[in-house]
Amino acid sequence: MASPRLRSRRKKRRKDNPVSETAGLPPGEMVHVGEKRTAPVHISLFSYNEQELVEAEELSPEDLERYRNPKHLAWINVDGVHDTEFVRSLGNRFALHPLVLEDIVNTQERPKYENYGDFLYFVLNMGDISDKGELGMEQVSIVLGNDYILSFQEDPDDIFNPIRKRLRKEGSRVRKASPDFLAYLLLDAVVDRYFLILEHLGEQIDDLEEELMEHPEKSTLKKIYDLKRDLSKVRRSVWPMREIVGAMQRDTSDLMKEEHDVFLKDFYDHILRVIDTVEAYRDTMGGMIDLYLSNSSIKMNEIMQVLTVISTIFIPLTFITGFYGMNFDFMPEVHSRWSYPAVIGIMALIVIAQLIYFKRKRWL
Amino acid sequence: MASPRLRSRRKKRRKDNPVSETAGLPPGEMVHVGEKRTAPVHISLFSYNEQELVEAEELSPEDLERYRNPKHLAWINVDGVHDTEFVRSLGNRFALHPLVLEDIVNTQERPKYENYGDFLYFVLNMGDISDKGELGMEQVSIVLGNDYILSFQEDPDDIFNPIRKRLRKEGSRVRKASPDFLAYLLLDAVVDRYFLILEHLGEQIDDLEEELMEHPEKSTLKKIYDLKRDLSKVRRSVWPMREIVGAMQRDTSDLMKEEHDVFLKDFYDHILRVIDTVEAYRDTMGGMIDLYLSNSSIKMNEIMQVLTVISTIFIPLTFITGFYGMNFDFMPEVHSRWSYPAVIGIMALIVIAQLIYFKRKRWL
Amino acid sequence: MASPRLRSRRKKRRKDNPVSETAGLPPGEMVHVGEKRTAPVHISLFSYNEQELVEAEELSPEDLERYRNPKHLAWINVDGVHDTEFVRSLGNRFALHPLVLEDIVNTQERPKYENYGDFLYFVLNMGDISDKGELGMEQVSIVLGNDYILSFQEDPDDIFNPIRKRLRKEGSRVRKASPDFLAYLLLDAVVDRYFLILEHLGEQIDDLEEELMEHPEKSTLKKIYDLKRDLSKVRRSVWPMREIVGAMQRDTSDLMKEEHDVFLKDFYDHILRVIDTVEAYRDTMGGMIDLYLSNSSIKMNEIMQVLTVISTIFIPLTFITGFYGMNFDFMPEVHSRWSYPAVIGIMALIVIAQLIYFKRKRWL
Amino acid sequence: MASPRLRSRRKKRRKDNPVSETAGLPPGEMVHVGEKRTAPVHISLFSYNEQELVEAEELSPEDLERYRNPKHLAWINVDGVHDTEFVRSLGNRFALHPLVLEDIVNTQERPKYENYGDFLYFVLNMGDISDKGELGMEQVSIVLGNDYILSFQEDPDDIFNPIRKRLRKEGSRVRKASPDFLAYLLLDAVVDRYFLILEHLGEQIDDLEEELMEHPEKSTLKKIYDLKRDLSKVRRSVWPMREIVGAMQRDTSDLMKEEHDVFLKDFYDHILRVIDTVEAYRDTMGGMIDLYLSNSSIKMNEIMQVLTVISTIFIPLTFITGFYGMNFDFMPEVHSRWSYPAVIGIMALIVIAQLIYFKRKRWL
Amino acid sequence: MASPRLRSRRKKRRKDNPVSETAGLPPGEMVHVGEKRTAPVHISLFSYNEQELVEAEELSPEDLERYRNPKHLAWINVDGVHDTEFVRSLGNRFALHPLVLEDIVNTQERPKYENYGDFLYFVLNMGDISDKGELGMEQVSIVLGNDYILSFQEDPDDIFNPIRKRLRKEGSRVRKASPDFLAYLLLDAVVDRYFLILEHLGEQIDDLEEELMEHPEKSTLKKIYDLKRDLSKVRRSVWPMREIVGAMQRDTSDLMKEEHDVFLKDFYDHILRVIDTVEAYRDTMGGMIDLYLSNSSIKMNEIMQVLTVISTIFIPLTFITGFYGMNFDFMPEVHSRWSYPAVIGIMALIVIAQLIYFKRKRWL
Repeated sequence: MASPRLRSRRKKRRKDNPVSETAGLPPGEMVHVGEKRTAPVHISLFSYNEQELVEAEELSPEDLERYRNPKHLAWINVDGVHDTEFVRSLGNRFALHPLVLEDIVNTQERPKYENYGDFLYFVLNMGDISDKGELGMEQVSIVLGNDYILSFQEDPDDIFNPIRKRLRKEGSRVRKASPDFLAYLLLDAVVDRYFLILEHLGEQIDDLEEELMEHPEKSTLKKIYDLKRDLSKVRRSVWPMREIVGAMQRDTSDLMKEEHDVFLKDFYDHILRVIDTVEAYRDTMGGMIDLYLSNSSIKMNEIMQVLTVISTIFIPLTFITGFYGMNFDFMPEVHSRWSYPAVIGIMALIVIAQLIYFKRKRWL
Repeated sequence: MASPRLRSRRKKRRKDNPVSETAGLPPGEMVHVGEKRTAPVHISLFSYNEQELVEAEELSPEDLERYRNPKHLAWINVDGVHDTEFVRSLGNRFALHPLVLEDIVNTQERPKYENYGDFLYFVLNMGDISDKGELGMEQVSIVLGNDYILSFQEDPDDIFNPIRKRLRKEGSRVRKASPDFLAYLLLDAVVDRYFLILEHLGEQIDDLEEELMEHPEKSTLKKIYDLKRDLSKVRRSVWPMREIVGAMQRDTSDLMKEEHDVFLKDFYDHILRVIDTVEAYRDTMGGMIDLYLSNSSIKMNEIMQVLTVISTIFIPLTFITGFYGMNFDFMPEVHSRWSYPAVIGIMALIVIAQLIYFKRKRWL
Repeated sequence: MASPRLRSRRKKRRKDNPVSETAGLPPGEMVHVGEKRTAPVHISLFSYNEQELVEAEELSPEDLERYRNPKHLAWINVDGVHDTEFVRSLGNRFALHPLVLEDIVNTQERPKYENYGDFLYFVLNMGDISDKGELGMEQVSIVLGNDYILSFQEDPDDIFNPIRKRLRKEGSRVRKASPDFLAYLLLDAVVDRYFLILEHLGEQIDDLEEELMEHPEKSTLKKIYDLKRDLSKVRRSVWPMREIVGAMQRDTSDLMKEEHDVFLKDFYDHILRVIDTVEAYRDTMGGMIDLYLSNSSIKMNEIMQVLTVISTIFIPLTFITGFYGMNFDFMPEVHSRWSYPAVIGIMALIVIAQLIYFKRKRWL
Repeated sequence: MASPRLRSRRKKRRKDNPVSETAGLPPGEMVHVGEKRTAPVHISLFSYNEQELVEAEELSPEDLERYRNPKHLAWINVDGVHDTEFVRSLGNRFALHPLVLEDIVNTQERPKYENYGDFLYFVLNMGDISDKGELGMEQVSIVLGNDYILSFQEDPDDIFNPIRKRLRKEGSRVRKASPDFLAYLLLDAVVDRYFLILEHLGEQIDDLEEELMEHPEKSTLKKIYDLKRDLSKVRRSVWPMREIVGAMQRDTSDLMKEEHDVFLKDFYDHILRVIDTVEAYRDTMGGMIDLYLSNSSIKMNEIMQVLTVISTIFIPLTFITGFYGMNFDFMPEVHSRWSYPAVIGIMALIVIAQLIYFKRKRWL
Repeated sequence: MASPRLRSRRKKRRKDNPVSETAGLPPGEMVHVGEKRTAPVHISLFSYNEQELVEAEELSPEDLERYRNPKHLAWINVDGVHDTEFVRSLGNRFALHPLVLEDIVNTQERPKYENYGDFLYFVLNMGDISDKGELGMEQVSIVLGNDYILSFQEDPDDIFNPIRKRLRKEGSRVRKASPDFLAYLLLDAVVDRYFLILEHLGEQIDDLEEELMEHPEKSTLKKIYDLKRDLSKVRRSVWPMREIVGAMQRDTSDLMKEEHDVFLKDFYDHILRVIDTVEAYRDTMGGMIDLYLSNSSIKMNEIMQVLTVISTIFIPLTFITGFYGMNFDFMPEVHSRWSYPAVIGIMALIVIAQLIYFKRKRWL
């Protein structure tokens, strides 16, 4: 029977690879895939230009109408995409393509970038370390339009708070710039989150390495295996981001201003650094597994040596004692006065000869 | 002698890699390759435009003549390609190239896309889990012409039923769109089938992982090996589909409308997701094999330790008992009153010394 | 000393990799490399157009003059390239470049395609299973000119017979088409031969897999090793053919008619299928080696367990028997009536305790 | 508990992969990342043209104003980038982009090359062997402007001294050339440093190989593991430099004179040579690990053989002696005069038979 | 302490990877790197055109002046590049770039091709098997000018003798052709040398394989390891030559006549054949290591089986003998007449039961 831990892992995998739930549906059909959440959907709005800023929270799609201001840029952040009706209603207001809406609520998408002409669509995976130290993945969708930005997260999160703070500061660059600059800030915030995760994993690697050197246990290998899995997860989430940047560079959308190209490069550098670190960690872990197995086989050798030395020393001696323990009537030696010391001497010689042999073989 | 299971596997492999049956034949020669089927060939027709829809089943190639309507689009689905005469007769009606007919009936083709000018030709592999849980592969050929679509399957299957349902719904997009949209729906249905297969394999992986952690058996390794084989099969079927999309994107056929490009991208995304999942599973399985072997070598070490500890403790003691079991007439110690307790004391000392040594070596 | 089998393998390798025999010679120097053959060279001619066909065999280069007909296409097939004079004489009649002549007789060339303007030159490796089941490689050179085709094989072979049959059939496509169509048939015949070889290897893999599951022997591993070698040989011969097709596609020679492009694609598909099958087999064999080694280490574990269980059960018991076999005068227990049953009881307790321990450890 | 060595390694890793310290900050925010240094920042200036040279040390950013000479080229070298205010003040004087300033002080950047129009920006990693033989990495930033070069190091170092010497020599090429030539010298000095590091690592590999062949210890494996880590570090630092050269070659900045292209090629050759050597070392180390493990398993086999030979020879003999040590009243043999020599004879026969068996099995 | 063999290998490695000796020097500084040679430098000249040929040996750079003939092509071959003054003096006469001179004397360069406009520069590595069977590498530099060719070797060698012979033959192609044809001959001679080396290595592989199958020793593994090293060396020398051909093909120098393109292709084919052979050998050696290790683990299993069978048969029997060797006063069985044959019967039963068990387990 499955242990509770395993059952929870199984459920988690289902969540990670929910490959079948949308199979057979027509393209553009909106189905929320992932853990069923019951929490209400949060929606917050920043409507701003260089001079003014309006903030609003807990809006309904209908409320947005009131807040939209043709002279403002609008950033609408949605926490929770399991309410497909909500997302559809919001999406229709911004004339999003049905396939985009499908991708927003189907939280198993691959990171990607798509240019729909009127707007650009980004899907990213954002890692998160839970309180129990488990690594989870959450899908973040960003839609960049001419005068608006939509961002969708699965769970309420504080990752965009620093950006909010900067928006509130009058005169900050983000208040003056076109919406793609805000998009860069959002993208960068998602990538920067990986630095925190990698630091967390790096610490676990250090602990494991210490454990490996000082007191390897049977469970050490299991931990290495689990850590490798987490690394693979990060890797699968980050590698496709490279392609995103590549696609953005080849693409020539008016929505991305040329003046912000350096931020795209900067974003790319951060992705490369995350990838480099992940690859370096994978390398390290590969080496750790080798070291673990080698240590284990070395320990085996040591054990075998002790067994062999003890056995090969005593087995012949025990034979001799058995020999003179036989009860034959006619065994002339046993009656001789010198037999006993002679046998002891022979035994000593055997031991000495073997010790020399083992010494020469470096088994001692 | 081969066990029945092995014999069946052998037959299956023949089916999977029937490399020789067409060797030496001229190109364009139609030979059905694969398991010999005797079931009659089913042919069904959807002839439709935005307003009208005609359905017909169990047709012969001759019947088609009657049903073809120049104002309609026609989707002809064929279940069973082992009747080469049937396929040739059908193909000639649509002026298909002999090489296409050869590929349709030779069900061992690699997934591919070919532009023959008047029509586009797709070969896909469709996976299927049999009732016994075995993974099979079936070839699906799709021919997209100006006003018709032909689809060929090896076995009758319900995979296209949701598409049929949508065709019957008046006003649905597929009724209004050009035939390439229907082709996208067919292609997507084939790829989506892989999500079901991967979920099935994912569950097997979970079970295996549980088995590996809780009670690894000798058969566990065999199961991992078989599962890896299934994954390889899926992989070989899905990877070439990437090339198909690439070829379609480079190609500029009037038969693929530009307005449906987003569906091509969507199709591509699904393929990538299948590939990502397959690669992730392969990674996981690689780790499982390592873990299995490591656990097995760790268990070996444990066993060796117990053997060594028991042997090295008792071997010297047994030597001592043998020593005083010798029957020499002249053994002064045996007559002393204190010899017996002295020997017991020495034995106790030896045991204690060894226990300390093993403790220090962490063998206990 | 080398066993005869090894000596023969060594000779074979020389043949496979005769790397040095042409070193230091000027480019264009014709030296036959390979097993020295003494059989006479066979030369056969098909001179044909749509209406007429002339066949001739056992010709000398001089005879060709008589048979050449400016209104005919000529296919000259040469079995045996060890007679360098013969090849040179023939080559000069068709104004072949000295480097081509060198490559024809040097049967160690890599598969390649070269456009010499007036003619195209193909080198292929053709696999063959000998009567003893050994895989050999033979070089096939094909020269495609404006109105002639030359084909060179090392040994007489029946691989081109189906093509000959079709040539003899009046009205067949090959009789009407330009010579590049015949070239495609020849190329395809060489590639199709690999399907036969792969089927042979696939059967051996099946047998080996059965042997591995049912009764692995020490020799099983050697067989896997030999089979992997054969697969590598096929792989090295087939991979460069991909490049050949690539070069043909990039090249724009008038000698290859555009109307035959579909046959080039078909040829390419066959190559890809051979490669796919080879890679799948290699994958399978890699898994088999892993399985073999794992099984072997699992068997080792089992053996160790039995040894450990038996040893650890009896070693303490034997110590006890030895203990009461000591001959000390003063051993009070031995005179007690209850000692004997008591010792037997203690022994039984030890055995039971150990059995419980082993059960818990899953060693039984 | 972590040993002091491990704790120091952990701290070092933090330094190597300080992934989180800048997460969440806006792009362009200057934060020094790395070991906190307290040493004051050193700044030195070379202002020169073909005729004149002015040297100055220990300047403040304000001092630079006085020394700048529009007819001179200026090379300003900064040792220590932890004083972010200092770097900002300097950067603003040369109108550097905020992202460049961020990269200069964030010493965890990946080697890269960026063209900012008015200036080119290079980031390199410079390896260094500490007194304790540990491999460290230091970031070197180079900014190449129209009439100035800025170079930033983390620690004072003598790596640029040979260049200083050449600058002081009137008439030397560097005095006459445009500033990109000086940039090449700086870049080359950084790459050449790797030759020293590789020589150091090569010596360690030689020592390890010797240790491996002559007297492998348990610690040998750990040393191989550590050395592989160092190699990986060098590898990660050098590989991106290839991309730098590629980017420079594709780029057409007026700041890089075409006449100096040969030096770019030369620089590239040096990078390739470093990479080749690193890869060759990695190859060697992979072979060493294999050899170590194989030797270890061979040694195990040897030990097992000795144990097996000794055990299997004596176990049956000991059984025989035990047999005739039984105390049954009715054991006719023990009273016979010939039993004793007969038993000895049988024992001798058993030993001889076993020796022959072992000899045949090559276990002796 | 290092054995003499190891010390010599260490010195050899220094020679192979002398990474540091030029570090820190300005580009263009000529420093001879490599084993210090004291032998005098040999220089030989062929000055020729179609009609005339002048040969001269043991020249000094000054002598060249006298021999240069504007109507002749000149081939100057230099054996020994350790005399940097000599090389500089020669180079200046032909206006070679300082970086070229640096590369000629620094004999650790990577194979490469560089177009300096007036002349083309090639660096190749030429393998050589020493009398002791050790594989060495020597750098060959070739400079191809408008009317001259310079070739530089480290040691006097007879590799170019066949070319000299052909030069002396009036009317030979090389006498009539432009100097790039001679360059092709020189390049080809260097590559062809690798065929000899590969044949040598192939023989060693055959010997090793025979040793592996017939009587594997501990030293076999070491030999495989050394052979793999040699193969890696050849590989590192030959792979960059591919890039050379690629660079030559992309390059459009007037110094390479288009009419000689077939020879470039031929040269490329030879390189590919060397690479193919090297890769095939590497494959084979990888398989050999696997086979060695598997054989070793199989042998281990066999040994364990024998030990286990012997031990488990005799350990219980020995316990029984010990049991009835106990000296208790009250052991009723020992006085019974039937005890002795009963015990013998029980022992026989135990043995038979175990033999059946082992048989079933296939351990016998």
